[in-house]
Amino acid sequence: MTFQVDLNCDMGESFGAYTMGNDEDILELITSANIACGFHAGDPSVMKKTVKMALEKGVGIGAHPGTPDLAGFGRRAIAISPDEAYDLTMYQIGALDAFVRAEGGRMQHVKPHGALYNMAAQDAALAQSIAEAVYAVNPELILFGLSGSELIRAGERIGLRTASEVFSDRTYQPDGSLTNRREANALITDPEIAGAQVVRMVKEGKVRTVDETDFTLRADTVCIHGDGVTALEFARRLKDLLPEEGVTVEKIGSRFS
Amino acid sequence: MTFQVDLNCDMGESFGAYTMGNDEDILELITSANIACGFHAGDPSVMKKTVKMALEKGVGIGAHPGTPDLAGFGRRAIAISPDEAYDLTMYQIGALDAFVRAEGGRMQHVKPHGALYNMAAQDAALAQSIAEAVYAVNPELILFGLSGSELIRAGERIGLRTASEVFSDRTYQPDGSLTNRREANALITDPEIAGAQVVRMVKEGKVRTVDETDFTLRADTVCIHGDGVTALEFARRLKDLLPEEGVTVEKIGSRFS
Amino acid sequence: MTFQVDLNCDMGESFGAYTMGNDEDILELITSANIACGFHAGDPSVMKKTVKMALEKGVGIGAHPGTPDLAGFGRRAIAISPDEAYDLTMYQIGALDAFVRAEGGRMQHVKPHGALYNMAAQDAALAQSIAEAVYAVNPELILFGLSGSELIRAGERIGLRTASEVFSDRTYQPDGSLTNRREANALITDPEIAGAQVVRMVKEGKVRTVDETDFTLRADTVCIHGDGVTALEFARRLKDLLPEEGVTVEKIGSRFS
Amino acid sequence: MTFQVDLNCDMGESFGAYTMGNDEDILELITSANIACGFHAGDPSVMKKTVKMALEKGVGIGAHPGTPDLAGFGRRAIAISPDEAYDLTMYQIGALDAFVRAEGGRMQHVKPHGALYNMAAQDAALAQSIAEAVYAVNPELILFGLSGSELIRAGERIGLRTASEVFSDRTYQPDGSLTNRREANALITDPEIAGAQVVRMVKEGKVRTVDETDFTLRADTVCIHGDGVTALEFARRLKDLLPEEGVTVEKIGSRFS
Repeated sequence: MTFQVDLNCDMGESFGAYTMGNDEDILELITSANIACGFHAGDPSVMKKTVKMALEKGVGIGAHPGTPDLAGFGRRAIAISPDEAYDLTMYQIGALDAFVRAEGGRMQHVKPHGALYNMAAQDAALAQSIAEAVYAVNPELILFGLSGSELIRAGERIGLRTASEVFSDRTYQPDGSLTNRREANALITDPEIAGAQVVRMVKEGKVRTVDETDFTLRADTVCIHGDGVTALEFARRLKDLLPEEGVTVEKIGSRFS
Repeated sequence: MTFQVDLNCDMGESFGAYTMGNDEDILELITSANIACGFHAGDPSVMKKTVKMALEKGVGIGAHPGTPDLAGFGRRAIAISPDEAYDLTMYQIGALDAFVRAEGGRMQHVKPHGALYNMAAQDAALAQSIAEAVYAVNPELILFGLSGSELIRAGERIGLRTASEVFSDRTYQPDGSLTNRREANALITDPEIAGAQVVRMVKEGKVRTVDETDFTLRADTVCIHGDGVTALEFARRLKDLLPEEGVTVEKIGSRFS
Repeated sequence: MTFQVDLNCDMGESFGAYTMGNDEDILELITSANIACGFHAGDPSVMKKTVKMALEKGVGIGAHPGTPDLAGFGRRAIAISPDEAYDLTMYQIGALDAFVRAEGGRMQHVKPHGALYNMAAQDAALAQSIAEAVYAVNPELILFGLSGSELIRAGERIGLRTASEVFSDRTYQPDGSLTNRREANALITDPEIAGAQVVRMVKEGKVRTVDETDFTLRADTVCIHGDGVTALEFARRLKDLLPEEGVTVEKIGSRFS
Repeated sequence: MTFQVDLNCDMGESFGAYTMGNDEDILELITSANIACGFHAGDPSVMKKTVKMALEKGVGIGAHPGTPDLAGFGRRAIAISPDEAYDLTMYQIGALDAFVRAEGGRMQHVKPHGALYNMAAQDAALAQSIAEAVYAVNPELILFGLSGSELIRAGERIGLRTASEVFSDRTYQPDGSLTNRREANALITDPEIAGAQVVRMVKEGKVRTVDETDFTLRADTVCIHGDGVTALEFARRLKDLLPEEGVTVEKIGSRFS
């Protein structure tokens, strides 16, 4: 039996004179790039540059739409309506798609960012709207969402291919949700434990939760964090470990095609 | 000999809780709609709604990219570089295009807005960048620009179809530029004079300038203003007058196809 | 026994080329103006103009800080932290205060806008931060909040003078909260019923709730809506009715001084 | 004979999740801090934090208003009217002033940023409006401008105290303007030459221009750049050199008081 997994990372988060992230280094390690689209981060010039880099590296390109909240980096929950979610998702996918097409590429996926991702994980109406927007722009796009979330359910219901996302450096609650970052045990800081968690999620479809029970989940893609020295180290460990464990690391689009 | 002309108008300029223009009324009179793309005006929800209305009326749809200057409605000249012009033009075309495609339509044209339009009329490098961005997204798009401008020249050089724009309610200088709005004689307030100016521009390719000389120019499309009661009246007069004078009013895309 | 009440209205909500509200007409009817500060609405030029008009009419001037959400007109709840609430409240008060001082006036009050007002009505930590920001800028400022809300409590606790706000055109729930606008019976459309509700709130400190019980509340200032013909009519009726009923309409600052 | 000079630096330029500059290190070296006010850079939370740090270090605090161009970091010339310049200057001074007063401090000066600074150096009407806004908010504020510029002239005409700014790391043209950054010889990269240039400007009121002539100018304050390792090194060299040369480094406000 063979196993595959995709490694994805947020990028293109610089804005104007402001720099964020180590996009060039990270692009060597991942298979799918979620590129910010100018609402929570990114700007047209950063988008063009990031698309070019991702195409050069052969990394799958995804739109990473966020809330219109540059000041909060798209991390603050905001009470947008399902219609607003549809509209801003479509707008941002279109904006990025122009750069991808102009550079001769093809967009692979869409992954909502931050608060939009979290709200869409739990709010079925919001999830439905986002999935509809993705489908309406291009039904071939792959929708990324938290494994087991409303967003994944909405994507499947509507006929999109989906990628269930898991985390290597976060602990899980008994119900499959991530432990809140405010909790002491939210983060996994040992790269070996993080790596083992990913391997088990991919190969067995299970994760050990904080109360020592197993939770069943699907692991199509692993979220890699792009900021901080540790993050890079984690990603490098994962990139080495997975093949050793018989897991092929390849971009999600290759699996579906 | 037969004559055709396109009538275009800016629209989709509302933003959030703010309303601007009489888009529904104007859509009955024009053949091409320039839809704001969220930088100088418009937002994702307004864009979707305006695209739908334009498709229902069979009006040609164009992206109307502007400078990132909502506070100044995109009317203030701003020293952006040619690269920045390329990037923000591409971004905005892409964003609008997503809505057009999702609604089953096809974008017809691109017309830069306000300061971007004016700067591109005179600055060859900026004009070149904008034309390149349009071409890179979709070489079938028609580029609108001031008749005789650098933008029209850049579009032709690059292989785009172009539409030379003229004005019914503005007076012309001996060099073919529009009289500055600050001048007393900048505006034509008599609908009969305005109509006659358009008819002559379309049929003879000439306009009488403020110093009573003739200037030779091309008139593919006429700019209709959407704000104010007078504007609507001007547009209605033109819509009636042109056919009486043997000029067919049709969307620019029909002529090229 | 004498009764007084203040009539307040949001204004200065135009932005750039976008116009909103009938500020000049409304200023004739009210005693306190809540002027938008550029986050959810308003811009520096609108602020200057509105401050001047309010000073000419002798109307009390208040800062009307909102969330950084121009696209949503500050009406969408957004998960800002208490620190962020403190900072953006202080920023906006300061910005408006410069115009007030430059025109020779003195700021009278602060009333948070939309989602900030609603969140501060229920969230004690947010309310505390807003009250602290107001106090730190100028302890003489009067804090406006929903009657019976956490914001009023926070203001009193910290030593600010407060103005408890009531609504003439909204129905009340048994717990003193406003009926959600989505409910059928949320709005009062009969000016006589609206007027009677205000008179009773001011003179008896009571309001009849939707389940026909009485709720005890304090009524220092009445919120007047500035948009729509009806709103103006309501305001005119109130302005006439209150003196007939022995209630003096005067700006809140006069009562305290 | 005694000489004094002020060393100023732009700071508080971080925004939301984006970090810029080494404010803490720079604050040890300078005597006046120009704090961004949220238009071209900075946000309310960054402003509060920066004001606190500057007060702790005893550094003079100035508002650093810019154009509403976060995407361009306020560096792109934009055709704002004198009225708009007045309004946005007043708004930003007020916003920062609230934080300064809340922390128990007093604002010392105002220095326009980037494009606003450059436009105000040459455009007399814009300079006049900015000076009027500063004066109207607080006539005790010191106006910083390029030595010999329209902004300094406007400030003096209106009765403000002014501080003529000079540059240590830029070469001068025969007319006293700075050599355009695009020119090869625009920057001085040798800290000794830079230091000597400042010492001569302060003590002799002269600078050697690129064509080897002397230009007479006034040097009240020296602009220190906050970004890059070199900048910090330059600042440290200047801080040591000036006292050795008999020039007291002190904040401009001390000299005037």
